[in-house]
Amino acid sequence: MNTRIRASVQNMTPYAPGEQPRLPNIVKLNTNENPYPPSPAVGQALATLDPAELRLYPDPGCTALRSVLATLHRCDASQILVANGSDEALRLSADAFVENNGSIGYFDPSYSLYPVLSAMRGVPSRPVDIWPDMTWHMPPDYSASLFYLTNPNAPTGMLFNKAKVRAFCEHFPGVVLIDEAYVDFAREDCLDLALSLPNVLVCRTLSKSYSLAGLRLGYLVGSADLVGALHKLKDSYNIDRIAQAAATAALQDQPWMHANVRRIQTTRTRLTQELRGLGWQVCESESNFLWTLPSGKTSADVFEALRRRAIIVRYWPGPRIGSYIRITIGTDEQIDLLLAALREEA
Amino acid sequence: MNTRIRASVQNMTPYAPGEQPRLPNIVKLNTNENPYPPSPAVGQALATLDPAELRLYPDPGCTALRSVLATLHRCDASQILVANGSDEALRLSADAFVENNGSIGYFDPSYSLYPVLSAMRGVPSRPVDIWPDMTWHMPPDYSASLFYLTNPNAPTGMLFNKAKVRAFCEHFPGVVLIDEAYVDFAREDCLDLALSLPNVLVCRTLSKSYSLAGLRLGYLVGSADLVGALHKLKDSYNIDRIAQAAATAALQDQPWMHANVRRIQTTRTRLTQELRGLGWQVCESESNFLWTLPSGKTSADVFEALRRRAIIVRYWPGPRIGSYIRITIGTDEQIDLLLAALREEA
Repeated sequence: MNTRIRASVQNMTPYAPGEQPRLPNIVKLNTNENPYPPSPAVGQALATLDPAELRLYPDPGCTALRSVLATLHRCDASQILVANGSDEALRLSADAFVENNGSIGYFDPSYSLYPVLSAMRGVPSRPVDIWPDMTWHMPPDYSASLFYLTNPNAPTGMLFNKAKVRAFCEHFPGVVLIDEAYVDFAREDCLDLALSLPNVLVCRTLSKSYSLAGLRLGYLVGSADLVGALHKLKDSYNIDRIAQAAATAALQDQPWMHANVRRIQTTRTRLTQELRGLGWQVCESESNFLWTLPSGKTSADVFEALRRRAIIVRYWPGPRIGSYIRITIGTDEQIDLLLAALREEA
Repeated sequence: MNTRIRASVQNMTPYAPGEQPRLPNIVKLNTNENPYPPSPAVGQALATLDPAELRLYPDPGCTALRSVLATLHRCDASQILVANGSDEALRLSADAFVENNGSIGYFDPSYSLYPVLSAMRGVPSRPVDIWPDMTWHMPPDYSASLFYLTNPNAPTGMLFNKAKVRAFCEHFPGVVLIDEAYVDFAREDCLDLALSLPNVLVCRTLSKSYSLAGLRLGYLVGSADLVGALHKLKDSYNIDRIAQAAATAALQDQPWMHANVRRIQTTRTRLTQELRGLGWQVCESESNFLWTLPSGKTSADVFEALRRRAIIVRYWPGPRIGSYIRITIGTDEQIDLLLAALREEA
């Protein structure tokens, strides 16, 4: 044990991202990437970027990018923080809104990064159980400095009732960060809560609906004072020149994003029906993935059988969620391969 | 006052980066950017990158990039952390090596981000005065959990004696992070200390010598257990796909970097002599900038006079360092414009 390393860091278990295999011919349905490429405007932005300009620092305020986001969401640029992936926005919020004697809340199950952020911040986690029916009953004495609320939720893919989310935010004394990573695939969003309630932030990412997981671009929307606190803490130049240009281009091509979302929604409906036809239980997804309980075989067996066929899905061993398999919605061709494999293995 | 924002964050003054004016015809000598473009290999890496691949997450372990760095520095990849700019590496170190009742040390003057990192971490700063002769005398009861040692120092540009740095590290009980942002412009470095002493990390950046300030790529080298602690804390996907590819390409073209460094060193020698000829005091620089005390006029007057001529240098109002002007070494043409302006204003 190295006494120079902070005790909480020695004791913490880091976040384990889904595997990123580099094999060329796999069907990768494990980390909720978009199966379709980003807008051609992204490629054009990269092609017109002069590499010589990389000698200069980027704009620390991401002025052009935040201006596009402010227009998109009908708010002021001071209400927007741009982050190096939404993970940075989540982490900055833990640093800005949680005192050393504070705590961090979230629903369980949800994004498995949240307890890691609590450990990194060195404060207790206060998870609230929503298993198995995805409804919540807050303990009467419940409090937390910051509450991460994933909507649509992960890994279940389900959308919480907006009236319930609004009531939760209105009664919660701390900051509520609504993590809307998957919201473009859902029927409604909570952005207006971030623009109307003083304690609510909404987090978005370009990783899913905009097909830019490889770029690392997330953002937060909310009241200028909460967002201003985060600006004090972020690394000055947290978004590089290339990412600023590429993200600005992607956001300006809304039709491309929405067209890909519709294709994924259509495939999602088909896969849901096909899996149910095989006897699987499938949660009603409002995201780009399905949360499924296999029929006839254990989730571990299904995971391994698919893996042998170079089809990679997500599976977390252990109690409760360990019975389930999470499947990213791929192209129709990928989903055909998945279904053929499941039928052969059945 | 918003009670949802952590008190230390409300009270802190954020880091103020040097201004990044977007005007086309300025002579920008204020933020120590390299006046020459990055290696053509960077442009080639960008041109060969398929934008469609951006739909996939980057390699969270930066395997290829860390392998190139490990070869360059003759160490194991487990001894290298890659960060979204060296600022991220500095911040992660404060999170990993400083308990809530700890403290952060650094020499004064040095990089003005360090006290901001202390404030962000919510612990006291313990600066050690090295003004005006850049030597240090540690108080007998001095301690800190983490000590940032900038070498060559900023904003003075001077290189500390390596034997003294080694002795400092050997006797310091906490972690010493030697910030070598400018070391490629110096006559020697301390990388071997990071590879031989258990409490030393060396931080490097591609912003200066590699002409990639716009890319955001820094890294740390040191013992695998200190570096491993930082890996637990970093955002999983902190370096995007494009930056990984571009940085790998830049690092593999060492001759390009060294050629630009030599040009800058030659211009540095010339500018030092010319300014001394004008009666200015100029510190012996081992970096890509000069720390200068103007003759005949105050630093504020020189700063403003140059600014009116669209020549931007760096000046911090206030006591002590407020008498000085920091000038980035530009191209010979830029330095000719600077000298002509100074002669006309004299």
